[in-house]
Amino acid sequence: MQFHLNGFKPGNYQIPDAARKPYPNPPIEDLPAQVDVLIVGTGPAGLTMARQMSEFADITTCIVDKEPGPLLFGRADGISSRTMEIMEAFNSSEMVVKETYQLKQNTFWEPDPENPQNIKLTHKIPDARAGLSEFTHGIVNQARLHELLLDGMKNSITALRPHYSRELVSLEIDDSLTQDLDAYPITATFKRTDKEGKQAEEVIKARYIVGSDGARSSVRKALDIRLQGESANKAWGVMDILLKTDFPYIRVKSFLQSHDHGAVMTIPREGGYLCRFYVELDLLGKDKRVADVKLTEQDLIAKAQKVFHPYKLDVKEVAWWSIYEVGQRIADRFDNRPIGCSDDIIPRAFVAGDACHTHSPKGGWGLNTSLPDTFNLGWKLAAVLQGRSDPKLLSTYGTERRKVAQQLIDADRELSKLVATRPVAGDASEQAKIDTTKIEAFMKRQSGFVAGTSIEYYPSYICTGQENQELATGFHIGQRFHSAEATRVADGRSQHLGHLVKADGRWRLFVFGDTQSPIEPTSASARLVDFLANNEKSPVKKYTPKGADIDAVIDTYSVFQQQDLSMHDLQDYLWPAKGKYGLRDYEKVFQTDLGKDVYEMRGIDRSKGCVVVVRPDQHIATILPLDAHDQLTEFFDVFMLDQRGQ
Amino acid sequence: MQFHLNGFKPGNYQIPDAARKPYPNPPIEDLPAQVDVLIVGTGPAGLTMARQMSEFADITTCIVDKEPGPLLFGRADGISSRTMEIMEAFNSSEMVVKETYQLKQNTFWEPDPENPQNIKLTHKIPDARAGLSEFTHGIVNQARLHELLLDGMKNSITALRPHYSRELVSLEIDDSLTQDLDAYPITATFKRTDKEGKQAEEVIKARYIVGSDGARSSVRKALDIRLQGESANKAWGVMDILLKTDFPYIRVKSFLQSHDHGAVMTIPREGGYLCRFYVELDLLGKDKRVADVKLTEQDLIAKAQKVFHPYKLDVKEVAWWSIYEVGQRIADRFDNRPIGCSDDIIPRAFVAGDACHTHSPKGGWGLNTSLPDTFNLGWKLAAVLQGRSDPKLLSTYGTERRKVAQQLIDADRELSKLVATRPVAGDASEQAKIDTTKIEAFMKRQSGFVAGTSIEYYPSYICTGQENQELATGFHIGQRFHSAEATRVADGRSQHLGHLVKADGRWRLFVFGDTQSPIEPTSASARLVDFLANNEKSPVKKYTPKGADIDAVIDTYSVFQQQDLSMHDLQDYLWPAKGKYGLRDYEKVFQTDLGKDVYEMRGIDRSKGCVVVVRPDQHIATILPLDAHDQLTEFFDVFMLDQRGQ
Ligand SMILES: Cc1cc2nc3c(=O)[nH]c(=O)nc-3n(C[C@H](O)[C@H](O)[C@H](O)COP(=O)(O)OP(=O)(O)OC[C@H]3O[C@@H](n4cnc5c(N)ncnc54)[C@H](O)[C@@H]3O)c2cc1C
Ligand SMILES: Cc1cc2nc3c(=O)[nH]c(=O)nc-3n(C[C@H](O)[C@H](O)[C@H](O)COP(=O)(O)OP(=O)(O)OC[C@H]3O[C@@H](n4cnc5c(N)ncnc54)[C@H](O)[C@@H]3O)c2cc1C
Repeated sequence: MQFHLNGFKPGNYQIPDAARKPYPNPPIEDLPAQVDVLIVGTGPAGLTMARQMSEFADITTCIVDKEPGPLLFGRADGISSRTMEIMEAFNSSEMVVKETYQLKQNTFWEPDPENPQNIKLTHKIPDARAGLSEFTHGIVNQARLHELLLDGMKNSITALRPHYSRELVSLEIDDSLTQDLDAYPITATFKRTDKEGKQAEEVIKARYIVGSDGARSSVRKALDIRLQGESANKAWGVMDILLKTDFPYIRVKSFLQSHDHGAVMTIPREGGYLCRFYVELDLLGKDKRVADVKLTEQDLIAKAQKVFHPYKLDVKEVAWWSIYEVGQRIADRFDNRPIGCSDDIIPRAFVAGDACHTHSPKGGWGLNTSLPDTFNLGWKLAAVLQGRSDPKLLSTYGTERRKVAQQLIDADRELSKLVATRPVAGDASEQAKIDTTKIEAFMKRQSGFVAGTSIEYYPSYICTGQENQELATGFHIGQRFHSAEATRVADGRSQHLGHLVKADGRWRLFVFGDTQSPIEPTSASARLVDFLANNEKSPVKKYTPKGADIDAVIDTYSVFQQQDLSMHDLQDYLWPAKGKYGLRDYEKVFQTDLGKDVYEMRGIDRSKGCVVVVRPDQHIATILPLDAHDQLTEFFDVFMLDQRGQ
Repeated sequence: MQFHLNGFKPGNYQIPDAARKPYPNPPIEDLPAQVDVLIVGTGPAGLTMARQMSEFADITTCIVDKEPGPLLFGRADGISSRTMEIMEAFNSSEMVVKETYQLKQNTFWEPDPENPQNIKLTHKIPDARAGLSEFTHGIVNQARLHELLLDGMKNSITALRPHYSRELVSLEIDDSLTQDLDAYPITATFKRTDKEGKQAEEVIKARYIVGSDGARSSVRKALDIRLQGESANKAWGVMDILLKTDFPYIRVKSFLQSHDHGAVMTIPREGGYLCRFYVELDLLGKDKRVADVKLTEQDLIAKAQKVFHPYKLDVKEVAWWSIYEVGQRIADRFDNRPIGCSDDIIPRAFVAGDACHTHSPKGGWGLNTSLPDTFNLGWKLAAVLQGRSDPKLLSTYGTERRKVAQQLIDADRELSKLVATRPVAGDASEQAKIDTTKIEAFMKRQSGFVAGTSIEYYPSYICTGQENQELATGFHIGQRFHSAEATRVADGRSQHLGHLVKADGRWRLFVFGDTQSPIEPTSASARLVDFLANNEKSPVKKYTPKGADIDAVIDTYSVFQQQDLSMHDLQDYLWPAKGKYGLRDYEKVFQTDLGKDVYEMRGIDRSKGCVVVVRPDQHIATILPLDAHDQLTEFFDVFMLDQRGQ
């Protein structure tokens, strides 16, 4: 797919350049007086939270932003493999895959030793992230990702749409109400920012609030959450441009280190013509901030031209540009509870995304870390609001995501040092480093982290059973379920198992059978299924509300090594009757794909089999032996609420 | 993707069941007084014509239908691989792939010899069409395909939308004007069919008309085109149902032949629950028509239940049902010109789809033959309207598509005999045949035709050069360009070459290099490129209008065996400067994919290379040696109009 040939145009890329127009700003509608979940900010973190909440008809959500409409230009553009997997969980991966530039190669350039004012190719390598996911890392305008999330919200059961032109001006939490689940302890006051609104104030009461309002978060400030770490004294220029050049690898991600003019990183963009440049700027003086950098896009171009010598850059259009600070900061806590308080205290306000962690733009982490923040929080909040889980689950959000943020900060510090190599301002004595091999080594070492695929949550009651890890060495407890294909028994279609884990708040059990056929009642898988279906201690029986489909809370898929299975020989539970007609669900039973055997690809013990318990955010909660019936019950008992009394 | 669990719901499957609603009928807007192209009927043929025309800003199109809005239920449901390829050409394959049931297996059932009132599985086989295309044959509601075409029209540069509630009541062609390209010889009168419209009449003048108004086509009748062949005396019941059954292969396409109750064919449908049944009915008496068959859906169910014995069918919902005639008929001509007249006479009115060929529903051919009719016609009409091609091109529509229709009729006759096996009505003496192996053999033999991938047009000036076929044995002249992957040199991304042939009216040259590197000026590919770029006889020079991009009419891609190419070593023409900024197009040069070598897969002569000329409808027009410069010019000279004078 090609676009932007005759100039950058924001909007839906499925509409050709000549016809594409940005949508008009949506009409203003009154804010609701009271909601379950209030989300401030329509960046990737806020929209992901809203998209997740939009799946639940029984939860009311309001999402606001001070801007008059959706983002159109600039900001982040890297969509990591893990972010694509999450878009797939939201049923929206197709357009991301279709429209993104797919990054397959990198080139590295250093000063030519013979002729140091020239740059010279040192090496060209395949992208280190190949194979970490069924999705390839891609590059696309952040605004387009927003649009796909907005489309998903609009098409959902709740038809959720943001309220724009609303700025949060004050936030109060009534401490006397925070431990009462039915109460609305949050009072948020908004000011209209559009001209017609005349700064009118509106007040929303909420049970929970999510501050996804970016690096200068008002929610964070209102909660008195502190940022730890250095504020920036290093600035980078960033620009999205259309250009002509004789630089031979303009369609490959490139790191360029010049001898005298600093560094540039280039990232080819969607549509075949656009390109992003990150241009290293001089260090800011001690008390200087980025606002003091009085540079224009022409300065950025001039600087890039010097770095590229002897290659020529003929910039035809600057679609967007910005000067961006490099500072690594992390919030001391991710919710409203005091540091060190018990996990039994229920948090009611959360910060997510740039509101609680900021870092340089070069790793492509801003969007890709912000979005999974709320993908982690969303299902937990839904489960608590729906009375399915104990509210203590909410405190795991901060624990799990703050670890990731800290890793991010650490990785960013390291990368920033490698990429920003100019001597400290005013201190010309230190030599500029010219070692791009270190960047390459970093990228290789950190590939899983950069792709988001090796993000691993701390052991906890929802990441447990590490002693059984050897039953499936390729499904890492705490990491996301690494998808692999299997063949559906009922119709022979090949299916990515990971794509069955949709973002609908459900837990998944993947039962991998052992060498004994599941049609034998004595087999371990048949006995497990019998337990799940019929035993009073079965978590499926305990936690599924009366009248709901059998897979409404815990959704079971089975995968068998046997190639001669027929649906009708299998236990009913594996292809359950559902819905108002009691129709059978034929899409839950799989056999291994010959040639792409999931047992082999994910190191599953063929002789023992296992059950892999997958959280609603696709992370692996635990792995258990097929006969560990009691442990399976105990796992869910820690945080699930019995629904049989309801 | 699952849907319809709690009842069939038409509409956009990207919206979950609980939220999905059929769109309200679009508002009535005045018809235009005068258009270039008037299309009657919004079935697959009409919508494909409209979708194609919608790509061209300089062509005015009007499409009408007598119904009040888009189709919601029933009719065809098989989407052949070729139809999917065409949807890809319209940039809309993703949702078809995502939402369709993918047919991988077939089962065959016959009376159990031991117990003839029972059916018994005779064999289960993989679908014969595997591997014919990069797309798998799929099954989805015809209405959903319509919707994707409608979305494409709406998102196009012309933002084209149909006018509903308009019935064609009369059609006149002014014979004195038909050979004047600028004239509007067509006068069509429409009657409003909505209540508010009070049968008001509206008149449209048009340069061309396409009658895609189905089996009872008014356009066909007005043009006095006759149908040849038998009208039906065989009826089938068809129904889309939600059911419970102990039949073991309900999610696999199945052919069932009972001993006493005729045949049933079942086709699993999209969403995991829906199923289509074709139920054989008794032969109609000589003068009876389908309207005389006074059966209800309950009769169809009862009949199917008998065939399925001993399996039980518990039908919970009938989403749609119909009694459908089996008759094989073909129009004696596909346009308004008299039979046997010269190809130089310009046709101004066309019939397409069911308007010119009807047949039984079981082969899944109705939609899949109607849609390519207008995919064939669309680009030709656009080229003539835009003054790029000689109007004689229009007469190739009838020649090419009538051949396909004839093959279809022949195949359908054969299949109907195999599938409909009950004795002739009133003649109980003849034994019911019970030989499903013949169906299987037919399916195997006809797989390419059923998939649509082996459809081959007659040799003509736009399907020529058969003497060079051995230069690329896997690209059959006259058949569609069978896609294969190659790696883009500029960024290492793998790309399906066939997906570069978008439905935008352009011709494509695929230059497959020989063993000499293209960077050597003496290589055959370099000399061809030099000819195309610089020679006054180059078709690119002759047929590209002044001021247009170099690839606006003839779009050249190159594929090389060499693995060490760099864009900047290649001739400018291969990565041309385009658009208002003169930006380079980096996405036209490929090298073979290691492992999936297109030379190997398509039998391309490595030592000689070749150039494959692909028509705007993806069919291969000719194959030429790399040094056949003059022949390349001559090929285009036959029907293209020189643009240099413009
Ligand atoms: C100018 C700029 C340039 C950037 N460039 C890059 C880059 O080059 N590469 C890169 O990887 N990342 C870049 N980023 C960072 C990246 O965009 C963020 O990491 C990512 O968007 C974080 O998502 P988020 O949802 O946490 O916050 P944001 O995307 O920042 O969204 C916060 C939202 O909250 C709204 N908001 C803020 N305060 C209020 C309030 N009081 N009331 C109501 N609404 C409010 C804002 O209008 C905004 O829409 C850039 C960010 C900015 C701001
Ligand atoms: C009731 C029915 C059941 C079918 N069942 C099957 C099946 O089970 N399997 C299968 O493979 N195929 C089936 N088909 C056939 C399949 O739908 C067609 O082959 C396919 O739709 C042909 O496409 P088309 O565009 O040529 O015509 P159609 O899809 O028939 O479209 C013709 C359109 O023209 C409109 N029209 C007709 N006359 C006028 C007029 N005078 N003025 C304005 N508009 C007019 C009609 O309203 C209609 O929308 C069925 C068709 C029908 C009608």
